[in-house]
Amino acid sequence: MNQSTEDTVTVSVGLGERAYDILIGAGLLARAGAEIAARLPGARAAVVTDENVAALHLRPLQEGLGAAGIGSTAITLPPGERSKSFGALEETVDGILGARLERRDFVIALGGGVVGDLAGFAAGIVRRGMNFVQVPTSLLAQVDSSVGGKTGINTGHGKNLIGVFHQPRLVLADTAALGTLPEREFRAGYAEVAKYGLIDRPDFFAWLENNWRDVFSGGTACTEAIARSCRAKAEIVERDERESGERALLNLGHTFGHALEAATGYDSARLVHGEGVAIGMVLAHRFSARVNLASPDDADRVEAHLRAVGLPTRLEHIPGALPDAEALLSYIAQDKKVSRGALTFILTHGIGRSFIAEDVPASEVLAFLRECQTQ
Amino acid sequence: MNQSTEDTVTVSVGLGERAYDILIGAGLLARAGAEIAARLPGARAAVVTDENVAALHLRPLQEGLGAAGIGSTAITLPPGERSKSFGALEETVDGILGARLERRDFVIALGGGVVGDLAGFAAGIVRRGMNFVQVPTSLLAQVDSSVGGKTGINTGHGKNLIGVFHQPRLVLADTAALGTLPEREFRAGYAEVAKYGLIDRPDFFAWLENNWRDVFSGGTACTEAIARSCRAKAEIVERDERESGERALLNLGHTFGHALEAATGYDSARLVHGEGVAIGMVLAHRFSARVNLASPDDADRVEAHLRAVGLPTRLEHIPGALPDAEALLSYIAQDKKVSRGALTFILTHGIGRSFIAEDVPASEVLAFLRECQTQ
Repeated sequence: MNQSTEDTVTVSVGLGERAYDILIGAGLLARAGAEIAARLPGARAAVVTDENVAALHLRPLQEGLGAAGIGSTAITLPPGERSKSFGALEETVDGILGARLERRDFVIALGGGVVGDLAGFAAGIVRRGMNFVQVPTSLLAQVDSSVGGKTGINTGHGKNLIGVFHQPRLVLADTAALGTLPEREFRAGYAEVAKYGLIDRPDFFAWLENNWRDVFSGGTACTEAIARSCRAKAEIVERDERESGERALLNLGHTFGHALEAATGYDSARLVHGEGVAIGMVLAHRFSARVNLASPDDADRVEAHLRAVGLPTRLEHIPGALPDAEALLSYIAQDKKVSRGALTFILTHGIGRSFIAEDVPASEVLAFLRECQTQ
Repeated sequence: MNQSTEDTVTVSVGLGERAYDILIGAGLLARAGAEIAARLPGARAAVVTDENVAALHLRPLQEGLGAAGIGSTAITLPPGERSKSFGALEETVDGILGARLERRDFVIALGGGVVGDLAGFAAGIVRRGMNFVQVPTSLLAQVDSSVGGKTGINTGHGKNLIGVFHQPRLVLADTAALGTLPEREFRAGYAEVAKYGLIDRPDFFAWLENNWRDVFSGGTACTEAIARSCRAKAEIVERDERESGERALLNLGHTFGHALEAATGYDSARLVHGEGVAIGMVLAHRFSARVNLASPDDADRVEAHLRAVGLPTRLEHIPGALPDAEALLSYIAQDKKVSRGALTFILTHGIGRSFIAEDVPASEVLAFLRECQTQ
C-alpha cells in the first residue's frame, strides 16, 4: 500500500450553498494548510484526532497549517468506538470553546470514522454550526464516512442514534496515509468500496474484480477506486441529503452487518464494521435470491470477489459463537432503519441493482438466518 | 391576565420545506392533540417539560393527545436554567430513545424558554433530527424562543454556545396559560415584545405605548401583541434563518443584557433574562445617542415606556453590587456575538431603526459603562 506521489483528483459534492470538494491524492496531509487557507482565509483551527493517528500524522498536519498562517489547537482522544460517547463529545466541545474558536473558524477531523463522526458532530453543535474539514486517514473514512455530512455518537440504545447532518467544507483524502493502515483495516474499508458497485454501478464492480490487486497495492488504481467511490456516494447524497428516501441505499449490507456487530459485542477482535458489511452484503444478495428477486449466480459472484480480497462473507467466518437466529433478528429489529415495526432492508435485483424494500416479513428473515446458521 | 376564549390567530413562518404555523389563542393546550394529529398523522410523542409546568399543564395536554389517538411519554426535568446542561440533554435524549420514537414521531416542548431550547436541541439530534412541536407557556417563549428554530444548552464557557438550528413543525401558544405566570415573569417577557417595535416597527412600539395595559390584562390585545411579535420575528428569520446577517438584529439589548446576567451570576432573584434585555435596550439607545447616532429623546422614550410597565431600565435598578465597568466589558467581550476581537453591537438611529454595528471601539463602551455606573 505504498503510495507514490501523483496528481490529485477532485470530486465535487453539489449541495448548493453547502457544496464542497473532496481532494484525493498522496501528500495532502502536509498540503492541508495551503488548501484550507485558500478556502477559509483568516480562520483558526481545532484538530480533533486520536492517540494512534496523532502519533503518525498530527505533527505534519499542524506544521502545514502553521506554514499557511493557521493557528491550531489539538484535541486528542483515546482510539476506538468508545470515543463516540456523550463524554467524549462534551470533552471535544469544551476543547473547541476553550480555544475560543468562532463560527467561521473550523474543526479538522484527523483520523478514521470514529474521529470524523465525533468531530463533525461537535462542529455541528458548537455555536450552532462551525466550519468543518475532514482529513480521513483510513480507507473506510476516505470512501464513506467523511463524505455526506452524517455525524454522530452512540448511546446505550444503539449506534449513531444521536447526531446531526453537518457537511464539511472540504475533504482531504491523503492516499499516502493508507500506507500506515493495518492490512485488515484496509480490507474492511474495501467492503465499502465494493458496496458502491453493488448499489448501482455494475461496471465499477466488474472493474474492481479485475483491478483489486492494484487497488490494494496503492498507486493510481487506489486513487481511482477512492475517487469513483466518492463520486458514487456524492451523487446519492446530492439527490437525498437528509435520507428521506434513496440515501438509504448506502445501507446495503448494513442492517445485517450492524446486527452482527451488536451480536459480537462490538468486539473488533471478532468483527470490525467493514467485515460486518461484507458479510451483510453477501446475506442481502443471498436473501434476495431466496425470495426470487435476484439470481443466485449474482450472490455467488459477490461472495467470490469479497472472499478473493480476504474478507469474511459468512456467519461461520466470525470467530467465536454467535447467538441464535431469533436473537440475531432481535438485533435487526433494534436497528434504527426499522420503521414502525416493519423491517426495511436494502435488497437487490442483481449486481448494481439494489433497492429499498419496505415491509420485509420478519418470518422470512428468521427462516433465512436459520438456514445460514445450519449450513 | 385572565384570558377569555377567543378566536385563534395563525402566523405562518415561510421557510420553504421547513415552513410552519404558529397558532395563538386561548385553549390551545387542550386542543393540541387535534391540531397535531391533523398535521402529523399516526405519530407518537415525547413531552418534555419541567416540574412546575407539569403540575399545571401536563395532564390536559396528554389527555388531549390521547383523545386524538396520540400515545405519549412525559420527560419531566427540574425547573430553571440549570436544565440547559449536557446532563439534562443526555437524560432527555435517553428518554426519547427509551420510548423507541422514530424520526417521524415528535417531541413536544411544554414550558418556557429553557424547556423549549433543551427539548428542541434533543429533537434536533435524536436520529439526526426528529419532528418537534413547541407548546410555549411563558410570554417570553411565546413571542421569542419558540419561534425561529434556535435551540441549545449552556456550558461553563457561556450560555447557548452549544445547539442546533432545528425548526419546529408547529407552535401552539395558548394565551390562557399566561394567566398562571407570575407578574414578574410576564413583564420580563414583555421586554421581548417591545424589542420588535424597537428593531424595525415604530408603529408597533407606539401601539404598545398606548395599549400595554390591555396587553397585561390579557384578552385580544394580548393575543394581538403576541401575534405581531411572532410576525416580526418570522419575517427576520425568513430572510436569514441561520443568522449569517440580519437575524442578529434580534439581539437588540442582548449584548449588554447577557453581560449583566453573567455579572449577577444568573441569579434570577436579582435579574431574569427579560429584565437584562430591558436594561440592555435602554443602554443600546443611550449609547447610540452618546455617539451621535440617535436622538437622546428616543432613549428617553424607550426608558419611559419600559419603566411604565415596571421593568428595570438602569444598572442601579439591579439589586446588589455590580462589578466595575472593566469587568462588565470583559463579560461583553466573552459574549458569542463578539467576532474576531472586535465588538459587535446592535445600535440604533432611533425607535424602529436598529442596525448591526461592527467594530464598535471597546474604549467607547468602557467610557459609557463608567458613566452609567457613576450616575
